[in-house]
This record gives sequence, C-alpha cells and structure tokens, in this order.
Amino acid sequence: MKKSSSSSVMQWKLNTGLHLLEKTMQHVYVSYTSLGENEQHGIRHAGEKNTQEKIIISNERPWKPWQTARSQITGCVRHVQTAMVSLAGLEWYCYAALGVLTALMSFCMDLTIAKLLRAHQWLYDCLEGKILLQFLCWTLYPTCLCALSTSFSHSICPQSTGSGLPEIRTILSGVQLPDYLSLSNLFAKLIGLISTLSAGSTVFLGKVGPFVHLSNIVGAYLYRLYASACGEKQRRTQGEMLVVASAVGVASCFGAPISGVLFSIEVMGSHYSVQDYCPCFFAAVCGSLTYRLLSVCSREQETVQAVFKTRFPSEIPYQPPEILIFAFLGLLCGAISCIYLYSHRWILRFVRTNKFISRFMATEKTLYSATVAFLLASVTFPHTGGSFMASRLSMKQLLSSLLDSTQWNLISHNATLAQESPHSFWQEWSPPGYSVYHTLGCFILIKLWLLVLACTLPLPAGYFMPVFIYGAALGRLLGEGLAYLFPDGISSGERLSVINPGGYALVGAAAFAGAVTHTLSPALCALELTGQSTHVVPILTATLISNVLARSRHQPSFYDGISLIKKLPHLPSLIRACPKLSSVQIRQFVVPVGAVLQQAEGVMGVQHIMNSSKENEFPVVDTHDSLTLLGTITRAQLQTFLLSNQSEDLCKSLEDECSIQPVKLQLSTDATVKQAHCIMSVLREQCVFVTEKGKLCGVITWKEMKNMIEELTKEI
Amino acid sequence: MKKSSSSSVMQWKLNTGLHLLEKTMQHVYVSYTSLGENEQHGIRHAGEKNTQEKIIISNERPWKPWQTARSQITGCVRHVQTAMVSLAGLEWYCYAALGVLTALMSFCMDLTIAKLLRAHQWLYDCLEGKILLQFLCWTLYPTCLCALSTSFSHSICPQSTGSGLPEIRTILSGVQLPDYLSLSNLFAKLIGLISTLSAGSTVFLGKVGPFVHLSNIVGAYLYRLYASACGEKQRRTQGEMLVVASAVGVASCFGAPISGVLFSIEVMGSHYSVQDYCPCFFAAVCGSLTYRLLSVCSREQETVQAVFKTRFPSEIPYQPPEILIFAFLGLLCGAISCIYLYSHRWILRFVRTNKFISRFMATEKTLYSATVAFLLASVTFPHTGGSFMASRLSMKQLLSSLLDSTQWNLISHNATLAQESPHSFWQEWSPPGYSVYHTLGCFILIKLWLLVLACTLPLPAGYFMPVFIYGAALGRLLGEGLAYLFPDGISSGERLSVINPGGYALVGAAAFAGAVTHTLSPALCALELTGQSTHVVPILTATLISNVLARSRHQPSFYDGISLIKKLPHLPSLIRACPKLSSVQIRQFVVPVGAVLQQAEGVMGVQHIMNSSKENEFPVVDTHDSLTLLGTITRAQLQTFLLSNQSEDLCKSLEDECSIQPVKLQLSTDATVKQAHCIMSVLREQCVFVTEKGKLCGVITWKEMKNMIEELTKEI
Repeated sequence: MKKSSSSSVMQWKLNTGLHLLEKTMQHVYVSYTSLGENEQHGIRHAGEKNTQEKIIISNERPWKPWQTARSQITGCVRHVQTAMVSLAGLEWYCYAALGVLTALMSFCMDLTIAKLLRAHQWLYDCLEGKILLQFLCWTLYPTCLCALSTSFSHSICPQSTGSGLPEIRTILSGVQLPDYLSLSNLFAKLIGLISTLSAGSTVFLGKVGPFVHLSNIVGAYLYRLYASACGEKQRRTQGEMLVVASAVGVASCFGAPISGVLFSIEVMGSHYSVQDYCPCFFAAVCGSLTYRLLSVCSREQETVQAVFKTRFPSEIPYQPPEILIFAFLGLLCGAISCIYLYSHRWILRFVRTNKFISRFMATEKTLYSATVAFLLASVTFPHTGGSFMASRLSMKQLLSSLLDSTQWNLISHNATLAQESPHSFWQEWSPPGYSVYHTLGCFILIKLWLLVLACTLPLPAGYFMPVFIYGAALGRLLGEGLAYLFPDGISSGERLSVINPGGYALVGAAAFAGAVTHTLSPALCALELTGQSTHVVPILTATLISNVLARSRHQPSFYDGISLIKKLPHLPSLIRACPKLSSVQIRQFVVPVGAVLQQAEGVMGVQHIMNSSKENEFPVVDTHDSLTLLGTITRAQLQTFLLSNQSEDLCKSLEDECSIQPVKLQLSTDATVKQAHCIMSVLREQCVFVTEKGKLCGVITWKEMKNMIEELTKEI
Repeated sequence: MKKSSSSSVMQWKLNTGLHLLEKTMQHVYVSYTSLGENEQHGIRHAGEKNTQEKIIISNERPWKPWQTARSQITGCVRHVQTAMVSLAGLEWYCYAALGVLTALMSFCMDLTIAKLLRAHQWLYDCLEGKILLQFLCWTLYPTCLCALSTSFSHSICPQSTGSGLPEIRTILSGVQLPDYLSLSNLFAKLIGLISTLSAGSTVFLGKVGPFVHLSNIVGAYLYRLYASACGEKQRRTQGEMLVVASAVGVASCFGAPISGVLFSIEVMGSHYSVQDYCPCFFAAVCGSLTYRLLSVCSREQETVQAVFKTRFPSEIPYQPPEILIFAFLGLLCGAISCIYLYSHRWILRFVRTNKFISRFMATEKTLYSATVAFLLASVTFPHTGGSFMASRLSMKQLLSSLLDSTQWNLISHNATLAQESPHSFWQEWSPPGYSVYHTLGCFILIKLWLLVLACTLPLPAGYFMPVFIYGAALGRLLGEGLAYLFPDGISSGERLSVINPGGYALVGAAAFAGAVTHTLSPALCALELTGQSTHVVPILTATLISNVLARSRHQPSFYDGISLIKKLPHLPSLIRACPKLSSVQIRQFVVPVGAVLQQAEGVMGVQHIMNSSKENEFPVVDTHDSLTLLGTITRAQLQTFLLSNQSEDLCKSLEDECSIQPVKLQLSTDATVKQAHCIMSVLREQCVFVTEKGKLCGVITWKEMKNMIEELTKEI
C-alpha cells in the first residue's frame, strides 16, 4: 500500500512538473506570438546582435587559442547555413528532423520492449518445473505492466489512452483538439505504450496507431518551431506538417515508406493536397532509412533490409489458378472482419452503457486493466490453453513464424526437414499430440474474442498489428489446408509447384487488416514488411475483395466505429455511416455575426465594438439595415484608426481612413455542411462568411464547424 | 508513286468512314441527351417493353425447343443481373471493363510489335554478309514505319501525335479538349503507336504516355455508356473516370498497379479526391491482372510475375555505405536530367521558331519524320556506330540486359561465367576489342542527343521508357565502374558482398525518369517492373535527391515544358513555371453575364431573354438596378412558365410561379484565378457566380476558365 501511495505521489509530482513545463513553454510561445511583428523582429534582431556581440567578445578573449582559424570556421558554418537555406526551405529540414526523431523514438522503444520481454522470458524459464510460480510469473508480469500503463497514462494525460488515430483523423480534417497534441500526451503515451507492448502477445496489442499519434505530436511541436523561425514568411500550415507526420509514423514504425505515404492519403477525409505528396515521401524515406540504419548499427541486421524478411521461392511463387483461392481468402477475411467489427462495436457500447462496468471504469480504470490483463494471461498460460495458441511466441515471432514458407505439416513428419528449418518457432505451433491445424484453429477461434476484450483496455495501444497477425493465421490455416489436400503441389502447365502457406498467410494478413480498417495501405505494408513483391497481385486482389465485403451496407470501419462511439467531430466518418447527412444544409446551424461594422462607422461605434468583442477580424457592411457585406477589417487597423482620430474631431468615418479587405468567397445558407467543410479544408480558410441574397447572415469558423458536426453527431 | 497515292486514297476513305461513324454516334448521343428526361424515360421504357414483347413472342414461337428451360435460364440471368447491380454500382463494372479492355489492347499491341520487330531482325540476319543491303534494311524499315505513323496519325487525327500526357493533365484539371478524347484519336494513336514502336530501339521511343492517353479515351467512351445507362442516377463524373483511366493506363502497360495509382495522384493538378483512390486501385488491379494473365496464357511467362524480372541477391543486396553512392547517383541523374530537359525545350522551341524547319514541318511532316528516322537509323547502324551502342537490342532487351545482376567486366574475362550467364545480351555491350565502359559511355554520350532529336518527331510516341533506359545505362556505368574499383566487393562488417551493377542500373533508371518527369512514381514502377523490393530504400533516396535537383529554380518538368510550349491551358504547370501568377485575381478576366432575369420579370421579358440567349441556366437578380443575386432558374422552368401563361393574362411575374434555385457559393472579384480553379475542380462545379458587394458582376464556367488560363499563358 505504502509503495503504491509513494509511487502515486511521485507520479503526481512528475505530472505537475510536466504540466508546469508545458505551461511555461506555452506561455513563452503565446507571449512571443502576441507581440506585434515589429517587436518580434526586434527580439530576433536583438538575438542576432547578442550573438554578434558574443562573437566579437570571444574574438577579443586573448586566452582562447587559434582565433583566426576559429573565425574562419565560424564563417564557413555561416556559409553552410546560408547555402542550406538557399538549397531548400526551412520546412524541408523540419520534415527530415521529424523523420529522424520519430525513427529514433521507434527504435529506442523497440529496444526497451525487447529487453523487457526477454526479462519476462528469462524469469519464466528460470521457474521451469514450478507450475504455480510459473503461472504467477506469466500472469502477474503483464497484469502489472497493464496496470502501470493505465494508471500512468491516466494520471498524466487521460487523452493518451487508446490508439489516437481517430482523433488524429479528426485533427487532420481541420477541427482542433488541442489536448491530443500536447507534450504531456507524448510523454504519457510513450511510457504507456512501452508498458503495454512489454506485456507481450498475452495482451495482443500493437504499436502503429499510437505511434502515428506520437509522430503527430512531434510534428506539431516542430511546426511551432518552424512557425516561430519563419515568422510571416511561413509557407506551410500545421495541417501539412501533420499529414507528413502521419506518413512518417507508419514509415518509421516498420521502415515502410511507401505504405506510410499511402496511409497519409487514406487518413485524409476527402481531398489530399498533391503539394503534400513530396514532403510525405521525403520525410517517410528519412524516417525509414534512419530506422533501418539504426538496426544495422545495433547489429540486429546485416544490412538495410525488411523487418520481417521472407524467403518465398521467386521462380514460381504461385500458379495462376491459385489466384482464385487467394480471392476466396479475401472473401473469408472480409466476412470474419465483419464479425470482428460488429463485436468490437458491441463491446465498446456495452462497456459504455452497462451501469456496473461504466461506473467501475470511471473510478477504477487501473483495476479494470489489471483484471482484464490477468484474465487474458490466465487463458493464454502455456500449461493450459496457451499451448494451443502458440502463446509463448512474442508478437514479432508470431508474425515471422506464420510467414515461414515451409509447410509445417511436412516438417512435423520429417525430422531432417525440421532440423534444416531456419526457425524453431513452428514447434510452438505443433505441441506434442496435436497437429498445426488444431493450434491454428484454436488461435483463430479464441484470439478473436480475446482481442475484442483487449480493445476495451483503457491504455495506449494499437490495434493494427494484432489484426494483421490474426489475418496471417487465417491465411496460414487455409494454406496449410491446401498443402494437406495437394501434397505434391499444384500444376497449371509444365512445372509443378508446391503450396507456400507463408504466401497465404501474407495475403490473409493484408486482406484482414485492410478489411478491418477499410484501407488498402496494408497491402503495401505487407509487401514492404517482407521485402518481397512476388505476391503483389494476390495481395491486392484479396485486399480489394475483403474491402468490398467489409464496406458493404455502410458498415463503419474500425476507426469510424470508434469515432462514432466517442462522438468525435469527424465529418467523413459521420457521412460514411449515414450518407443522408451529406445533404444537410448549413442554414439551421448558422450563428449570426456578433460584431458588425458599417462602412460609415464613426470613432464611437468602433470603440464600442472593439470593447464588446474579442475577435481579431470584423466584417464591414454598407449599412446596418441592408447588411450588404463589403469586406473585413482587422483589429490592428481599427486600433490605428482610433489612435489617429483620438486628437482630431470625431466625425471621421471608417471608410475614409481604412482599406477594407475584400472577402474572396461567400457561402449561401443553402450550401451543405459537407461543402462548407470541403471548401474550408481544401482552401485552408479559417473563416467563411455566409450571405443570403447579398445580406450577411453569419460566419463559419472552425469552432462553428466543430459545433455543427457535433450537432450532426446527435442526429445519428 | 501510284502505290502511295492509292494508299493515301485508302487512308482518306478510312478517315472519312471513321469520321462518319463518329459523327453518327455523336449525333445519336446528342439527340438522345437533348431529349427531355420524360422522353428519355419513354425511350428506355419502350426498349424494356420491346424486349418483354420479344420474350413473349419468342415464348409463343412453337418451333423453338426447350421453352421452359430457356425461360428458366432467362430468369436466372435476370436474377444474376439484379444481384450484380445490388452488389456494386454500375460504375464498378465500368472500372473493371476499363481495366480489362486496356490490358487487352496493351497485350495485343505488344504482340504485334514483337512480331514486326522479329520480322526486321529476321530480314537483317538473312542479309548477313551484304553490308549495303543490311544498311538499307536497317535504315529503311524504321524510316518507312515512322513515315507511316506520321502520315496515318496526321491524316486521321492531327491531335494524336506526341505523348498526349500534357493534354490529359489539362483535361483532368477540368478544361475540355474534346478532340483529344475522340474515337478517331484512339484509332490514329493506336495504329501510329504500333508503327512507331515497331521501328525499335533505333528511334528509341516508348509506350507509356500514349497508352495513358488511349486508356483515357476508352474511359471517356465507357463513361458515356455509364451516363446513358444510369440517367439521372449517376453518381460519378467524367473527371473521376479519367483519373481511374490514368491509373489503368500505367498499370496495364507494365502490369504495375501501385505505380499506376501513384501516377494518377501525381497527374492531378492540386487536389486528389480520396474517393477516387479505391476505384483507381480496383481498375489498376483488374488491368494488371489481365495483362499478366494474358502473358501466362500466351506462354510468354510461366506464372503471374514481373515483366522485367531480376535475380538480385536477396541476402545482402547492398552494404549500408553504398547508400551514399546511390545518393551520388541520384545527384548525377538530377544534373544530367537538367541538361536533357534544357536541350529538349531548346529543340522544341527551335523547331517551332526556325523559319525553314517550321515551314517544312507544317507542309511535309511525313518527309521530316522519314528524314529524322533515317538519320537516327544511320547513326545506329551496327556496322558503324551502332556496335558501340548495343543498337541490335530492342528496347525490352536493352532494359533486361542493363538490369542483369552479373558484372559484365567479370564475364568478359571469364569464359565459364559467360556460358552460365542467362542472357547473351551482354555480348552486345562488349563488342570485340572494346570494353563495356566504352559502349556504355558511347551510349550515354550519343543517345542523349539522339533522344532529344527523336522527341521532335511528329508521331504518337512515349518518352518515359527511353528516359528510364537511359537512366539505367547511367547507373550501370557507375555500377560497373565500382565493380572495377572494388573487384572483391565492399564489406561493412563481417561479410563481404560483391557489387551488383544491376542494382545501380535500377536505381539510376528510377532516379533519372523521376527527375525528368518531376515525379516519384518511377521509383515504384522500377520496383514493380523487376518484382524485387530489395532496393526500395536506395531507389527512393536517389529519386528524391534527383527530383530536388531537377525541381530547383522553378525549372519545368518534361510535361510542363511541353504544356508551356504548346500553350495548353494547364494552370498548375503555369504556376510552377511562374509562381507569381498564383496571385493574379479574376477581376481583370470576369465577363459580365449576358442574360440576367429580374425577380419580377414578366412573360415578355422571359420570352425575349430565352430568344436572345442559348444558356441552360439563367441568374435571377432582384432588380436590374441593384443586381443583387437571388439564385438561378433553368431553361426548362422558364419554358413551363411561358407555356402556363400563354393563354392567361400577361401580368404574372417569374417570382409568382417559379422556384428560384439558390446559389450555394459566390466568389468576389478579388479571388485569385488559382482559388477559382481549385474550388471549381474540387467541388466539381460547372459554373460559379462572381459578385462584388452583393452585386452580380459575372459568371465563370469552364469555358471562361480556359480563356482566363490562356490569357495567363500570354503573360509568361
């Protein structure tokens, strides 16, 4: 008890410290940005002056040696700096930094998790023979880690739980959710995710989703740096940086740049700006190159190559008739994904609506996590049910074993082949007395429900990798079944080729993951993870077929489902779930503009409006009666107007002195919410005026857009 | 002389026949679409009725056997039809048809070209020993084919020359260029392209660009079918079908679906609609699967696999330090691409501005083609300069040979290795007495200028494949050079690995093609063509680096350059060439609306306006003085209004009887051309009204947009 209370005190302290740090950073940033441009310029100049002075001082310091050499070096560095900026804009260095930082984070995380997993394995092996102790070791280790993950992430930043991808999609669609891009979220998610993944394949959760979230937070912080360094000259928006960060997240998680870029296209709601395409590729390549080079440096791999490298025969990887079987596998994966998605939505809704569980979850999240983790671990204990599910293998080992190209059925009956096999993982899949079909069947039947249960855990975790592995098991079972039916292989012409169950596993993985997420990038991911593109056509075919089945009848995808249940203001998922919402007009949501200036407004009127409103921009109409929109005027312009007219007579009006900025675009009240959203996100407009027959009716900012979408969510 | 005149008469007849066919089809289509909805409905109903009657009649015909069985089958077919439509929308069948048709076309084209090339080869080999005859055979064959291609394409459809990609990009950006999507263009381009490509590697031209154009024409025709079948219910626009067709074009040209999809993203000007992503993938997979299955059926390949399959070692494909050399190769490719692009633009401008050549080109296109083809063939004659350029190899053999993973330098000194080598192509690269370095160097030095010259040929031809092969030669030279410097290979740890010049060739090909076209999809194309993804990281790195160099200082890409010289109304390439154009406002281009109705317009006014204008939609304002825009009204509504008021008194006004459709979006005259273009293409609007302070100033349709962009072209 004492220990836990002291740990909670420490957590509290850490939490407060982090919050303070972040607040201070925000404060400095806000006070800097709230300064006028001239003042900012002044500060920057002062900074430059300071460094110049320092250089002069350092040059004058007689005790430092090689003064000329050092000044030459300083000159060179400056030249390099100028050359770098002239070579490419500052944003490109930010993209590179984003890639490298995220890859570093990914690599360090992998290293830590691997060490923690090995520790568990070592402890478990040490207790060989003492089944009770082994049981305790097997169950308490993941239980403690899950409890730690939950309590840590909840005490530091409650928004850090879950995958984070639905929220990132919402942010990318233009709506602000500031809590999800904070530094405390990064910290909580990072530590929480390490704890979750160290619990191993017992809990059966992944890394990708949270990692995309993490890379988005890093991207948002880098963007702040970029914006403050560029000032007015900045050419990129935060949205662009976040799109790039999404690509980087996937790329540095697996060292798979192309699927990262495709993911960044899919994650966008309606339109992908082609301008972001090159930055996405660039940052994704930086990230995946760093990630792969790091694993070469750490001697994990001999050279830069795929993470789950396969050795499929490249001469005849499959016979043309097998494409039909791959297509059937796609259908199967699509059907099972529907069951999975339905159960997932059901359990999420049950957890939220069941009185007992929801109350328990609200107060005792840590206890809930611990209970569920204990349950999951008990089921997968190797001496009981676990032996039928290959539960001793870690997530990585599970995938590697499933992608093995040799037929397990053949190995288990052939001692020489068994010795030659590169991995001994397959032995886990055929425990004494049982065939691989039993274990694969058990795995498929039981893991689905365990995964659905694990999805309710309130801790930072990804759901892509488990789904990918589950699909691989489905494919493997089909492949092994075919290998049993056709032990001599299939021939379609002169040559006979044996069935490669690993290929089926790969196709199944891509198809199932694609169906669950309603995306096609898992197909590319499967190719890049294995480093072989022999199966590109079957993978794409199966993924397309499974997607068709999963998307039929407007069923929401995994992330859409979470968005809907969490009632996130994400318009595309709302419209996918309920297509008739796309015709809802903005008429019913338009809020009248608070402060409107008329063309002939005098000093008194301007003063009054500036006092009554805190907006930075005000619409100007010709008269308050006709309300014909003329344009906008900024607060700064109004302040200048007031200052210049303070001493003079009060009869001067606004139109005499200020230039009114014309409004480029007006929407009518008949435009739909979807159109307004599309225009604002594509043109990256911050505010759009709504007029009816020339009269100003209202204004839509992203805040109003968020309210509109939240109103729409209630209609489902 | 007689022969040529009779052939020209035949061409003329064919030409006229095709034009007639197309005109008739257009006429039928136009007259169908010009009918009112009810009448169309009537025709469709009549059609249904007819078939029903026929069925009844056929059922009554006593001499036809198995009546019940046949009616059961008919019932089954109907059930299948209903099930198919309920399974997926009609558009998906169109996408599949597009993929299959394009792949069929591609395969048949390849087959014909291969036969024609083999015929030339056979004739040349038959004349062994008679150098003069061989020279004539070598030069006259491509000369005749090029002359045929030019005269054929020019007499049938002058718009069919060139690659067609710049025009497709323009069409995809929303501007209509109807001549480029006509059936006669398809026919002329298809036959012209077959003739051009049958001229072989002498003329050194490719297939991709024109093939994308062909697939777009097929897509446009399929879209017409789809639109007429769906009627009002259609959910897709022609633009979407054309984006899909672009993806299919690349996918069925090489059997490379993923690079097809990436190409379709890059070919879009500013925004890619995520809605098109799945259709693109689906159609691309259909196309590439058909293409690959056809080559399996024709026994060209044993199973579904890559077109230019490589056998790179997969254990250690390259050592990590080699990434730096790959990056250097990217730099080299970028630099040489700048030279190539500059010369290409220079020669295009020279051909257009030089008085003699432009006059010659205007009148004697065929002669010009024949002359240039003869010149190219003379230079590459194997007994003179051709032996230093491996000119006996066809385009496919050139690429296959360059991607070979064995070191040529090693083979040429080792007789046993030479016998083991799978291809004998390498022998072409090392003629007796000369090393491979000589031939590769010659190839690189001379082919660049020959390619630049070939680009001026006025015939249907692609420019991607030659650039790809040229880049492969660049990479190969670097690879062979490294193999000479490090004969034992490079080591970075425990293991030593020999240099693989094929890998360098692949990286060079992707990097050079990427730099010339300013795209990244060649990187994916390289991976899919070879079917190996061992070199994914170096390929992407080098392509990115070469792109950076090629794009620096706003240099136009290959297609941008053609767009600019041809003065095509393609806004994105204009803005890339001259970024300050992005801030040009629509103010100076807005044309006032011709026919405006006022709210209280009477029968006489409506009658007058309907007679004076041919528009289908008219804007309605409150009064002609204030010009406040209220909405629009269609011609059909006005006709109903006139009909209902013909007999009654004339004092009824428009507002009493017609419902005015509100305008959802208004632009101000201060909006930029870029913004207007972006809004119209993203929202797929056909017309946008321009207002200033509530007053209607003008209207922008795609016709006006085209004029605006053409005006902007003059400013460069």
